[in-house]
Amino acid sequence: MNPATFLRVLGPEPWRVAYVETTVRPDDARYGENPNRMGVYYQYQVILKPDPGNPQEVFLRSLEALGIDPREHDIRFVEDRWEAPPLGAWGLGWEVWLDGLEITQFTYFQQAGGMSLDPVSVEITYGLERILMAVQRVGHFSEIRWDGRRSYGDLLLTAEQEHSKYFFETANVARLKQMFGDFEQEAQLALAGGLVFPAYDYLLKCSHTFNVLDARGSIGVTERASYFGKMREIARQVARAYLAERERQGFPWREPSEPRSHEAPLRGRPPTQPTAFVLELGTEELPVGDLGDALDQLETKLPPLLEELRLEHRGIEVMGTPRRLVVHVKGLAPRQSDRTRTLKGPPANRAFDANGNPTAAARGFAKSAGVPIRALQTQELAGGHYVVAEITETGLAAAGILAEALPGLLASLQFEHPMRWDASGTAFARPIRWLLALHGGCLVGFEYAGLRSGRTTRGLRTSQAEQIRVRTPADYFDRLRRAGILLDRQRRQAAISRQILRLASAVKGKVVGDPELLEQATNLVEAPVALRGGFDRSHLDLPREVLVSVMKVHQRYFPVESKGGLLPYFIAVGNGVGGRQVIRGHEQVIRARFADAAYFVARDLRQRLEDYVPRLEALTFQAELGSMLDKSRRIERLVERLADPFELTTSERGTALRAARLCKADLATQMVRDMTSLQGAMGRYYALQSGEPQAVAEAILEHYQPRTTGDELPQSGPGVVLAVADRLDSLAGLFAIGVQPTGTRDPYAMRRAALGVVQILTTQRQDFDLRIGLGWALEGLGRTASEQVLPDCLDFISARQQHLLLGKGWPHGVIEAVLAEQGYNPHGAALAVEDLATWVNRPDWPKILQAYARCVRITRDIPGLPSFSPDRIVEPATRELHAAILAGEQQPRRTGSVGDFVEAFLPVIPAIDRFFDEVLVMTDERALRENRLALLQRVVNLADGVADLSKLEGF
Amino acid sequence: MNPATFLRVLGPEPWRVAYVETTVRPDDARYGENPNRMGVYYQYQVILKPDPGNPQEVFLRSLEALGIDPREHDIRFVEDRWEAPPLGAWGLGWEVWLDGLEITQFTYFQQAGGMSLDPVSVEITYGLERILMAVQRVGHFSEIRWDGRRSYGDLLLTAEQEHSKYFFETANVARLKQMFGDFEQEAQLALAGGLVFPAYDYLLKCSHTFNVLDARGSIGVTERASYFGKMREIARQVARAYLAERERQGFPWREPSEPRSHEAPLRGRPPTQPTAFVLELGTEELPVGDLGDALDQLETKLPPLLEELRLEHRGIEVMGTPRRLVVHVKGLAPRQSDRTRTLKGPPANRAFDANGNPTAAARGFAKSAGVPIRALQTQELAGGHYVVAEITETGLAAAGILAEALPGLLASLQFEHPMRWDASGTAFARPIRWLLALHGGCLVGFEYAGLRSGRTTRGLRTSQAEQIRVRTPADYFDRLRRAGILLDRQRRQAAISRQILRLASAVKGKVVGDPELLEQATNLVEAPVALRGGFDRSHLDLPREVLVSVMKVHQRYFPVESKGGLLPYFIAVGNGVGGRQVIRGHEQVIRARFADAAYFVARDLRQRLEDYVPRLEALTFQAELGSMLDKSRRIERLVERLADPFELTTSERGTALRAARLCKADLATQMVRDMTSLQGAMGRYYALQSGEPQAVAEAILEHYQPRTTGDELPQSGPGVVLAVADRLDSLAGLFAIGVQPTGTRDPYAMRRAALGVVQILTTQRQDFDLRIGLGWALEGLGRTASEQVLPDCLDFISARQQHLLLGKGWPHGVIEAVLAEQGYNPHGAALAVEDLATWVNRPDWPKILQAYARCVRITRDIPGLPSFSPDRIVEPATRELHAAILAGEQQPRRTGSVGDFVEAFLPVIPAIDRFFDEVLVMTDERALRENRLALLQRVVNLADGVADLSKLEGF
Repeated sequence: MNPATFLRVLGPEPWRVAYVETTVRPDDARYGENPNRMGVYYQYQVILKPDPGNPQEVFLRSLEALGIDPREHDIRFVEDRWEAPPLGAWGLGWEVWLDGLEITQFTYFQQAGGMSLDPVSVEITYGLERILMAVQRVGHFSEIRWDGRRSYGDLLLTAEQEHSKYFFETANVARLKQMFGDFEQEAQLALAGGLVFPAYDYLLKCSHTFNVLDARGSIGVTERASYFGKMREIARQVARAYLAERERQGFPWREPSEPRSHEAPLRGRPPTQPTAFVLELGTEELPVGDLGDALDQLETKLPPLLEELRLEHRGIEVMGTPRRLVVHVKGLAPRQSDRTRTLKGPPANRAFDANGNPTAAARGFAKSAGVPIRALQTQELAGGHYVVAEITETGLAAAGILAEALPGLLASLQFEHPMRWDASGTAFARPIRWLLALHGGCLVGFEYAGLRSGRTTRGLRTSQAEQIRVRTPADYFDRLRRAGILLDRQRRQAAISRQILRLASAVKGKVVGDPELLEQATNLVEAPVALRGGFDRSHLDLPREVLVSVMKVHQRYFPVESKGGLLPYFIAVGNGVGGRQVIRGHEQVIRARFADAAYFVARDLRQRLEDYVPRLEALTFQAELGSMLDKSRRIERLVERLADPFELTTSERGTALRAARLCKADLATQMVRDMTSLQGAMGRYYALQSGEPQAVAEAILEHYQPRTTGDELPQSGPGVVLAVADRLDSLAGLFAIGVQPTGTRDPYAMRRAALGVVQILTTQRQDFDLRIGLGWALEGLGRTASEQVLPDCLDFISARQQHLLLGKGWPHGVIEAVLAEQGYNPHGAALAVEDLATWVNRPDWPKILQAYARCVRITRDIPGLPSFSPDRIVEPATRELHAAILAGEQQPRRTGSVGDFVEAFLPVIPAIDRFFDEVLVMTDERALRENRLALLQRVVNLADGVADLSKLEGF
Repeated sequence: MNPATFLRVLGPEPWRVAYVETTVRPDDARYGENPNRMGVYYQYQVILKPDPGNPQEVFLRSLEALGIDPREHDIRFVEDRWEAPPLGAWGLGWEVWLDGLEITQFTYFQQAGGMSLDPVSVEITYGLERILMAVQRVGHFSEIRWDGRRSYGDLLLTAEQEHSKYFFETANVARLKQMFGDFEQEAQLALAGGLVFPAYDYLLKCSHTFNVLDARGSIGVTERASYFGKMREIARQVARAYLAERERQGFPWREPSEPRSHEAPLRGRPPTQPTAFVLELGTEELPVGDLGDALDQLETKLPPLLEELRLEHRGIEVMGTPRRLVVHVKGLAPRQSDRTRTLKGPPANRAFDANGNPTAAARGFAKSAGVPIRALQTQELAGGHYVVAEITETGLAAAGILAEALPGLLASLQFEHPMRWDASGTAFARPIRWLLALHGGCLVGFEYAGLRSGRTTRGLRTSQAEQIRVRTPADYFDRLRRAGILLDRQRRQAAISRQILRLASAVKGKVVGDPELLEQATNLVEAPVALRGGFDRSHLDLPREVLVSVMKVHQRYFPVESKGGLLPYFIAVGNGVGGRQVIRGHEQVIRARFADAAYFVARDLRQRLEDYVPRLEALTFQAELGSMLDKSRRIERLVERLADPFELTTSERGTALRAARLCKADLATQMVRDMTSLQGAMGRYYALQSGEPQAVAEAILEHYQPRTTGDELPQSGPGVVLAVADRLDSLAGLFAIGVQPTGTRDPYAMRRAALGVVQILTTQRQDFDLRIGLGWALEGLGRTASEQVLPDCLDFISARQQHLLLGKGWPHGVIEAVLAEQGYNPHGAALAVEDLATWVNRPDWPKILQAYARCVRITRDIPGLPSFSPDRIVEPATRELHAAILAGEQQPRRTGSVGDFVEAFLPVIPAIDRFFDEVLVMTDERALRENRLALLQRVVNLADGVADLSKLEGF
């Protein structure tokens, strides 16, 4: 990022800049083969600071100036959270799609160098090649006409091919790592000398070098975090130093902010009869999820609000599109309902004298309450008689009331990732750009987010006359309907469903069902126009998972299938604009996307999956824990040891070992390096293509499961063992080198790994002693770890199970009691929790617990008791207790079973009660006392390995 | 250099490009303090390939478009040889000066990547800041108005200051060297994979890193060569690989070259009477030296040429300005003179029969000679009688003859650095752009350098109507005079002298005399306009040498002085344009130049000279020979040993040692790092400013002398010793590590060092045995060197003396003879050569040499002779010879004296003659024979240490 962007967005000073920048993204290099993806290309980068109030419109006009008529294209603002972790920078905004192709990133910078930005800067980065392709209507970047004679390819294709080769095949990893280190140190050196710009230069060099290393496939997941950390730290220091210097100079560019001029309000006459009210909050394109959230919140909050405001109505409709949130209150009363209040005055005996004439106190009260003396009444209140006045408040005009209430309503809307954009400091999902509020023909005038409400709405971005002035709510709905905008989500969704169904049927197919995608499509457009595009049948050779992923995740297209097989079509949902040209645009995009995937898969299939194993050496798992190859070898050894406890058959054992060898191999493939989410899926696919047995392929896929909460779990024996082995290795290894999650930071997803172990073992109903498993894993590391590592790691896993069990509603105490004794075996613990919870709810439980607790309480603080000696028994009660204990101890019990423990303990209870009744335990005679205590200790020990009952409520 | 320049200028394909480029030149960084010099700035770079034929005019029009009217400014094209050693690139062209300020580099690229370019590319690099300063009329780059509100300084000054600090103070040398190595290796790796563009990227990184290291002051002279070599090698490989790839593609951009259209010739009537001829060769601005060379050559070549062409005339004038070479032949005959030739035919007796009638042979001869039979005559030729025919050739028209001869004349002009520019392949000092050749009113039509001669000349570049059509030579001279152009060098020089004298007098000063500068000024303009500018008196605090250097070397200004002190004025000589604005321009330039020098001197004076000594550690002398600090310590030790043989007094010895300690210190100062030519001069100045004794300061200056051929030599004893010590250390060290000059490559200027030793010792008439001196120098290195090093190094020094002596006209044989015996002592050798040369010219010399030679010849191929034994003497002749030899051997002689040798030898000659007459040396009796030979060997040995006479002519 050019310092003209990174540094200048910091601090309060205004700044506007535009420049062309060469962009190097090694990861996007494709040897010049992909139509619109390159490793080296050009961007036109713009910063508008502060937000001018209409940056999207400015941007669209710039596209028009470039020859792209928004009325002929499907131009969409698709939500985007932009992030540059090495620069500690992020922002919210959109990818701008032109007929499906991302041509620009549009971002409201929220942070840079780890600092919150105020004012927020608007950053617009135009992808010049893609825009040129659209303007010149060519299908491949290399066909762009450079001048009258030569093409872009003539000039730059060779360089692109060579850079691709360099990034992916040639760059020397060790040397680039050395360079990174040198750049980093030089940046630190510059910073130590207060040199902001040189330090930033080196940061950019770090970042570029990192990107090459990353493209080269030699940065492990854990190593990445370390690189990011180093860069972010420099970025942070650079930003601070820059700001400090500007501040020292008194922020010389700062300007007084100019108040924004507002539309002169045309108030109109307040209604006298119930009539419709409409509120429209005009926004820049809201993210799909935020739109849903906002509508839900409005639906929840409006009825009580209107009630509180005493505004009667005949129903509320909440509607919305990405560009507007609309509230429609039908038949809203012109005024609030009146209300009567009773004011309490002085005691009656002080308000009226003996003659019943009002005193000065009564007169004063009447005056302050604003009623005539004669209107005062006497009431009995709280045991006394008081003078009271009844006051009738006449309801105010609805418009005035709403004008006061609406800002609060809007401010109360909450979003997961709110953003700021201008000096008003308002936080919202995306910038609010206009407010319309009409009660009948009357403007409800209020201010919010630096805007004044008015009577102007806007049509589709693509329409000629975007600004529409409306008279009344009815007029509003009518105009928007005529503009083609479907305000209502359900109606919009239904329209989309109808359209895509029709388009799919026309090619004898059906849409691959996906409610989430349908929801997204609905929330992405105001005037849905479904378009069916096709692609070359040859792309169908790609694995279905890849095709579907690409269509859905990248493009939000609906795949079309017939009899379970995909058809060479897709359906896109555009916003208001259709036509051949738009479809052609989408087709080119999906072609490029598929070409990209095909490029990876084809390259990957040049070798068998097994051949990728050695390359794992170049992928660092974690600096201290070695490469992914080291890791997969450790997994193999661990699988070998786990095979027995997990009772694998000989054949399963073979499958598991083979799968262990191959399980990480797909990480070295290009497809997975490009779409990490396909890890496992590609491993499975490549395994099958390489001739591996089906069971091996499945185990490879399974070993990543569960990938997210609610994901599937491994089912096959080998898959289970492999999944457990992988996670135990990670956890043991990371704990051994002292890397644990702190607070909300969990860069290595250790919590998910631990949870996975618990879920797998419990779902498989598999008893397994994690102490043994972690011991093996630690042994496998080939390094000595402190003694505390194993218990700490075990506690960490138990904490995940505790969390899981709490989520299922089991009582806290029960969970704690069981995990204290059985945390090492999640499955057993899960059963025990269920059991114990049942026991705890039985009516006789308090008695049981009480008996056990007496034994615990009296013994627990006394250390070093000798073992019980039957020879010293004196009293019959003691003898009885001893006999009962012996019986209990000898009763056959299943390990960890709560029920078995209770069954064994129940017969001891009467003996315990008698013992305490008849025997003074704490006698002064030490030997006797200790023998008695030792006997009670035997009682306590009965619960060993089952639960620590002292954790229970009521103990 | 952008690959769009570096790569695209290679090969035959046409290319035109223009782009803005950030330029980083760490060495030019000045903390933002200099008005027009920065470390980071912007250039607009243009490539025109091939030469469009009028690139200067295109460029001037572009300046006009930018708002710079050439008619109001002194715009000059000042010769420049541009070179980028790391890229193996160089070219010839100009700095373009706007009122004294370099605003653009204009270059015809001759080579890139070590490859000759065909076609040649025109490169124009506009200095954007400087052009803006001129256009906006501001005096400091930071005042440039960036937009309506902010200045260049507002945006970029802080960065410039920080970069300066980083380059000069902060950058970590060791780390940057590591980076350089990594970049270099990565470039090599990319090249090995055939990746041209990535390799070139890394080459640029190398180059940038080198530049920072250089600015940091940590690259020694010798180390620089090694860095350059590495980069050049990469550049060479990159260029080759790129070209190979383009060739493989069949050079797809190659276009058929279009024939240039020529002015339709208007021939005019050939003269019938003697009349003036004028030839004008119109060029782009010729370098000062080349203009002189060309005029000298024309003056030499024209008279014989016209004579050979039999063209009579009344005188030749050769004139010229930077833009034209002009030949004026007065009263040139309209035609060649006629001439008569005699053709030899058959012998007379075969041409005529007995009757005197012509035979067939005679008829045939007459026919072939084109004469009637009766015109044949008989002549006695070479002892026989032959038939001859006399033929009269009528002279042809002068115009036709000249048209044929002129291309050859022009092609015969030689330049030290010729260049090519277009498809004609012509080599000349700078491009030729038009040809005018008129004989009276008649066009002399010929073609040269792809041009046709015509009748159009051009006026001053700055004039409105540059193209001028002329009728006759008289018209030509008249029009040019009216255009203000002084064609004649002497007149131009006189005009300048007058003007500068007048301007200097007006401020009561005189011009600091400098014939070279006057010559330069004369050759730099066509219409001299001297301008006096002033500068702030405060600049006069700078050392005079610095001021004069800056004015002369950088700006070609005449300094003005009064009573030996400089005045705060300078005189510039502009080309046709004067006025306040131009003067103001020059004043701003000199202000910036002085500011630059003052900046350095002030920074340097913050410390004493001695304090710079430790910093020499960071300056590498040569990788294997350590730092400049190591070197200066070695020099100190060597001075200590040389003090005795050079007979220094105790006080001189002290001076020499102190000077030795300080002699290299100024290399670490910024002034010297910026203007290396001031080394020594600044050392002297800083020494005095630091309170060192005058003698020490002088010795520091002297130790660099002689810096060039013809430079002063050290005079003081300490200066001499220091100068010798420095050179011996360099020579011994570089030979010890095997670094010797090869062919024309002498990166460490070892030839100059060796020559300096010889010149100093001979001028000082100082006998000194270099074997001892080199031995000490080798000892001082602290490393073992092969035994061959010392003799090789001595031979190398001798070779320089040989060259020097040959240049003085001494005979080759004499020099060889003396150096073979006395090469170790240059002073003695020089005397001996003089002596021997005198002897050799004496009439009795052949006899002396003959006698000596007899002794040598008979003994020289016989190895291992025993020593002569007087006991075995048999014959009287032998006895006599022995006695003569003994006398000769015992005669007192000065070491190496030729005269003394001859005096001793002369008396031996008769004995030698008698001996050979009477004694058969080669008798069969071995003992006797060997004894006689041994005696003769004693004769031979008389010349030992004087000369190896066998090298002489006639031996």
